[in-house]
Amino acid sequence: MIIQEALTINKNRLEQRITILSQIGKIAGTGVCRLTLSDEDRQAVETVKSWMEEAGLTAKIDDFGNLIGRLEGENPKAPILMIGSHVDSQPYGGRFDGVIGVLGALEVVQTMKEKNIVPSMPIEVVAFSDEEGCRFNKGLFGVRGILGKLEEGELDRTDKNGITRREALVQFGCDPTQLKESQYPVDSIHAFLEMHIEQGPILEDKGLPVGIVTGISGPLWLTVELEGFAGHAGSVPMPMRKDALVGAAKVIVALNELASQDASAPTVGTVGSMTIFPDSRNIIPEKVRFTIDLRDIDIERRHRIEKQLRNRISEITEEHQLTCKISEDTNSEPRYCSDRIMKIMKDESDQIGLHAIELMSGPFHDALAMSYVCDYGMIFVRCKDGISHNPKEFSTIEDISLGTELLYRTALKMVKD
Amino acid sequence: MIIQEALTINKNRLEQRITILSQIGKIAGTGVCRLTLSDEDRQAVETVKSWMEEAGLTAKIDDFGNLIGRLEGENPKAPILMIGSHVDSQPYGGRFDGVIGVLGALEVVQTMKEKNIVPSMPIEVVAFSDEEGCRFNKGLFGVRGILGKLEEGELDRTDKNGITRREALVQFGCDPTQLKESQYPVDSIHAFLEMHIEQGPILEDKGLPVGIVTGISGPLWLTVELEGFAGHAGSVPMPMRKDALVGAAKVIVALNELASQDASAPTVGTVGSMTIFPDSRNIIPEKVRFTIDLRDIDIERRHRIEKQLRNRISEITEEHQLTCKISEDTNSEPRYCSDRIMKIMKDESDQIGLHAIELMSGPFHDALAMSYVCDYGMIFVRCKDGISHNPKEFSTIEDISLGTELLYRTALKMVKD
Repeated sequence: MIIQEALTINKNRLEQRITILSQIGKIAGTGVCRLTLSDEDRQAVETVKSWMEEAGLTAKIDDFGNLIGRLEGENPKAPILMIGSHVDSQPYGGRFDGVIGVLGALEVVQTMKEKNIVPSMPIEVVAFSDEEGCRFNKGLFGVRGILGKLEEGELDRTDKNGITRREALVQFGCDPTQLKESQYPVDSIHAFLEMHIEQGPILEDKGLPVGIVTGISGPLWLTVELEGFAGHAGSVPMPMRKDALVGAAKVIVALNELASQDASAPTVGTVGSMTIFPDSRNIIPEKVRFTIDLRDIDIERRHRIEKQLRNRISEITEEHQLTCKISEDTNSEPRYCSDRIMKIMKDESDQIGLHAIELMSGPFHDALAMSYVCDYGMIFVRCKDGISHNPKEFSTIEDISLGTELLYRTALKMVKD
Repeated sequence: MIIQEALTINKNRLEQRITILSQIGKIAGTGVCRLTLSDEDRQAVETVKSWMEEAGLTAKIDDFGNLIGRLEGENPKAPILMIGSHVDSQPYGGRFDGVIGVLGALEVVQTMKEKNIVPSMPIEVVAFSDEEGCRFNKGLFGVRGILGKLEEGELDRTDKNGITRREALVQFGCDPTQLKESQYPVDSIHAFLEMHIEQGPILEDKGLPVGIVTGISGPLWLTVELEGFAGHAGSVPMPMRKDALVGAAKVIVALNELASQDASAPTVGTVGSMTIFPDSRNIIPEKVRFTIDLRDIDIERRHRIEKQLRNRISEITEEHQLTCKISEDTNSEPRYCSDRIMKIMKDESDQIGLHAIELMSGPFHDALAMSYVCDYGMIFVRCKDGISHNPKEFSTIEDISLGTELLYRTALKMVKD
């Protein structure tokens, strides 16, 4: 494997910047709270903007709240290579999520600049506004914004204090009446690269610092409501019961079995949230409502499993005399990474002895929105215990540097060939 | 079956009194809210007291808040036959729970009085204070009070407004410094009879108005806490998960199977309450905490099932790499009704063509506390759909009258032979 001293990128500078950003909105020792469009978010964006300018980029904050730093290309009119991620965070978030993708991208471009490399096309380093979506309960705002993909009424969404996104944008220094000016024309973006912490345990399990993402598996989100009949836990004989929680338990077990049936497949199925009524220790549960999250990079397999699950739910509700309502909350299709970019990443990774494996991304990223307008590639960096969205989130600077080195070599290949 | 017109007891009077009591603390059309020691409770107790006096009983409210009406016996010093139940209710309660046991007992004694029957021993009709336990989160207060079975600090328990039971007793007109005066000496009670709605669906299922209780199956109450490891629902492969909810679901299914394995046994097992952390649709549940309620009239069988369940929990937690804590919140033994009283009830029921079946009681009753000091017998009256602790609770006056007739004939047998 490449030795740390042989890195092209500047590991110390990268580490310092990560450390400085981790102080902005710092919580719980190692965590950050930088809700989108907050004062902390603004401070982080301004800080990164100053580093962009220091690196010789032309930097601006657009009217969506996106930070964009541009390195001009040989052909300024050529479609752009965009590289980046986000610096906003979850309310109880970690200091690496998003941040390494933005600072890694800046490091890539600053290294080129220092080496007097002029890319064939312009490169833009971006920190997209509101990837997380926790403040206004809808994420990927900035990236959808520049692509003209906002939905009606998005500016009227409010946070828990009743502040609309429109008001928050104004407070952030943006002009929400001029959003069109910040949009990118069709075909103006050549490709998008994003480096991100894995937010899962696979790389750690394999003992590898870096992985190449094959695609983002969009989830199927269902809400299931089972209804039976309440009764005193001491007085209704077992054969006469219509226990909604027993039904729900069987569905949870069934989903777990269906998602695990092919051990070699990356299918995942989760029941994460549940409410029980009346939720009293001596009353048989009458109503249970729970979520289902099903993901697979292979949409056909996901459809098959969904069908099997719906059949099992029918059998279970019949067996326990329950009524059942299933609503579909989200149904996203998988979005595959560009074969061309994956091939470059693979070759470059092998060349420096990284031997990065391929893996799918369960979580969303800004790249998901970009996938609809251009080729994209993603690099995952190992994170400890797979923990993310938590102050305990951790990746070593060694792993982040290796990911950044691969990002640099990939970008270089793309702008020089 | 006995025709309604041939009843010894006065069905119309009984019906009128049930109707009048149902107006006190009336909620939701057919429900009542008469929390213990509230103004509504006081009004109900005063109303029943006036009926006791009208029937020629000597009535008083003791310092626990119990209403006691006495019909003197041939031998005033003989141990008492006590008959009754309670008139306090759940916050969202029904109009029959407890009430029919008090008004039925009054009807029994008033009928004797009208027939100039002088019992060999004194009979006391009681409405015990705070059977339900929902205001101060501990029930069977009045009955435990007269038996000297209160626990330390019970008067200091507070309701949700911070009012102590001591203060509530004073407000009710009781003197909590004089409780000892209201206690009954050892061996002063000969037997206790209680009529109650079934609060379960068995009698309705069998098409029978009345049942004879064999005993109260005390519950085993456990709280189980399973802990695994949270992670993003999209990024942790199935084989690497430590999903606490999948573990809990398997325990729920196991309990349901174990409690159902012998279809002829009255064993019941219920998980009624559950909390999940972090309870987010795209996070694998890290901690799940749920209750277990296991009841059986056969304590040996209950112990066997508990052991099987604990074994299953161990297997499941090992399989899913979870840690597990089980705490025991309540472990009550079954309390059997007196064979002698059950025999009288059976004979009397057959004589009037009722052919009451025997069944166990899952729920607690005032009789549970009495079972430790004297023989007891209980009569159950059919209730619609087994619904109780709900304004929808319903029993017909025909069924209640038949139960009261059986209560009358049983009491008569006990005080004349």
